[in-house]
Amino acid sequence: MKAIGADQPFALSEGNLFYEFDKDQPIPKNNELLIKVKAISVNPVDTKIRQTPIKNSPRILGFDAVGEVVAAGPETELFSVGDEVFYSGSPNYDGSNEQYQIMDERYVARKPDNLTYNEAVSLPLTGLTAYETLFDVFGISSNPDNNRDKTLLIINGAGGVGSIATQVAKEYGLRVVTTAGRNETKEWSEIMGADLVLNYKEDMQAQLKQQGIEQIDYIFCTFNTDLYYKKMIDLVKPRGHIATIVAFEEDQDLNLLKDKSITFTHEFMYTRALYDDDVIKYHRYLTDISNKAVGGAYRPTVTKVIDGLTADTLYEAHEKLESHSMIGKLVINMEDK
Amino acid sequence: MKAIGADQPFALSEGNLFYEFDKDQPIPKNNELLIKVKAISVNPVDTKIRQTPIKNSPRILGFDAVGEVVAAGPETELFSVGDEVFYSGSPNYDGSNEQYQIMDERYVARKPDNLTYNEAVSLPLTGLTAYETLFDVFGISSNPDNNRDKTLLIINGAGGVGSIATQVAKEYGLRVVTTAGRNETKEWSEIMGADLVLNYKEDMQAQLKQQGIEQIDYIFCTFNTDLYYKKMIDLVKPRGHIATIVAFEEDQDLNLLKDKSITFTHEFMYTRALYDDDVIKYHRYLTDISNKAVGGAYRPTVTKVIDGLTADTLYEAHEKLESHSMIGKLVINMEDK
Repeated sequence: MKAIGADQPFALSEGNLFYEFDKDQPIPKNNELLIKVKAISVNPVDTKIRQTPIKNSPRILGFDAVGEVVAAGPETELFSVGDEVFYSGSPNYDGSNEQYQIMDERYVARKPDNLTYNEAVSLPLTGLTAYETLFDVFGISSNPDNNRDKTLLIINGAGGVGSIATQVAKEYGLRVVTTAGRNETKEWSEIMGADLVLNYKEDMQAQLKQQGIEQIDYIFCTFNTDLYYKKMIDLVKPRGHIATIVAFEEDQDLNLLKDKSITFTHEFMYTRALYDDDVIKYHRYLTDISNKAVGGAYRPTVTKVIDGLTADTLYEAHEKLESHSMIGKLVINMEDK
Repeated sequence: MKAIGADQPFALSEGNLFYEFDKDQPIPKNNELLIKVKAISVNPVDTKIRQTPIKNSPRILGFDAVGEVVAAGPETELFSVGDEVFYSGSPNYDGSNEQYQIMDERYVARKPDNLTYNEAVSLPLTGLTAYETLFDVFGISSNPDNNRDKTLLIINGAGGVGSIATQVAKEYGLRVVTTAGRNETKEWSEIMGADLVLNYKEDMQAQLKQQGIEQIDYIFCTFNTDLYYKKMIDLVKPRGHIATIVAFEEDQDLNLLKDKSITFTHEFMYTRALYDDDVIKYHRYLTDISNKAVGGAYRPTVTKVIDGLTADTLYEAHEKLESHSMIGKLVINMEDK
């Protein structure tokens, strides 16, 4: 079987160090599934990990996949051969940039059957990140009626995570404010369901006041946390909660949190995987995402599809991600449907 | 009436810039009470504010008092003349280092009637800090049975806040681990109810393992947050929560929170006062503290009493606090009982 990997970390300016190679098709053990990958999506985390040291080369990236179960380990309970599934995967396994991928079934859920492969694969990593941030970090209620008096601000509403986080937060009853800087990102964020889109190039506090929004309960930063750290502290309510998924470039002054007794979380979607901590929650969250997509509450966030996975198309995808011009999600299609 | 104040910030090495002065006895307005102060306690926050710029001099410090209501504003609903009360107060009012103090009744609760003035005044500021950290920050349940599988680590168990936080956490069902470095602080922390006292001079992770404690859910730092920042990140569980009440000296690397998706809060007991946000909660928490003291669940934490409030005794109290040798709380008595 075919896989795309690299033997050393690289910047795109060094040229394309991805290459295609042959790999033995793996055999699922225990509760693992072997999945024939039909489409993948590329996330900012791929471009970041691409530049970090490699322990076992070639390293295969890829944190989103949709595909069909073609073999199942002896202890699998949730899925059978023939099931169509989607998942974000785990740093404990090779990534999805390959024809067949092994995955622990607790990381997997049924693909929404009303969506194409390209549509479905836009949802797992970003959806899981949104669910963890809303439910585990902010602790919002699973009953939307309990969340109706709460307001969430999402920094970068038109990004991959922002696009699905907006939909999830709206589905669970929150009022959602997002930020955008261009007409097309503003419009996209409104399509995703944002109640209000702030222009981050102008005074955000003033724009909130103008719309009669006096209190921001939660802020979810999905872009350049250093740049927004102080702004978020200014905007959040006393005893409010800020979360980020974007690592800092610089040390920060934590005393700025004191006056308002602010809570800050650095959310990381693979904490459960790294610490083998309540891993089944990936399956449960993805199942809710799948059900809600089938019911029409969540729409896919794919805006760009590249045909066929090769070293060249993967490099092209990484280039596109690093240009910071993406709205929604980029997908690489491996089999039409 | 007599008050102790200062006209400029000062370090103790500059000598004693506190002085006694006469002040008109204030008249309570709205929902304010005029309270004849019977005892005060001195907290680390007094020593810190003493060194900060003064807007209106003389500045009167003091964030804990017990006393008798001698006059009540026309809109008071909770208290009447003759009531004995205790409170930590508010940065919006002159402090308790004076004979009569004005206080908004929402900051006040009934003094536990089984305690002396000296005993009662050891509880408000530290008790409120413990309640806010446990209930508002960590979000523990008010039903102790729901907290029995959770472990709290308190850095500096024998300090003023650590002493009452240990008792509150135990009363509400948590398992409590504390840190101490001397025999007498270890013994004191055990008297306060700690299930396990770690020697912070040795490997804390190893001591926890030895006692079969595998998971720390919450860490409450009441001493030198810079020193403990990385240690706390190592000790807390994945998706655990760290809180501090001690301001940092240096900027910190927030990316260290990422791997475990750790949540961090800078708790500040006067956020509600500063932002006029749910202020009645001070009354409610203090009332619970009072009731639980009457019921015998909380014991006072006073270990040192200085007789009579003068510029000299106040300076002496600040000296004692800054020596970092205090166990429990220091009280200045103004009227025997």
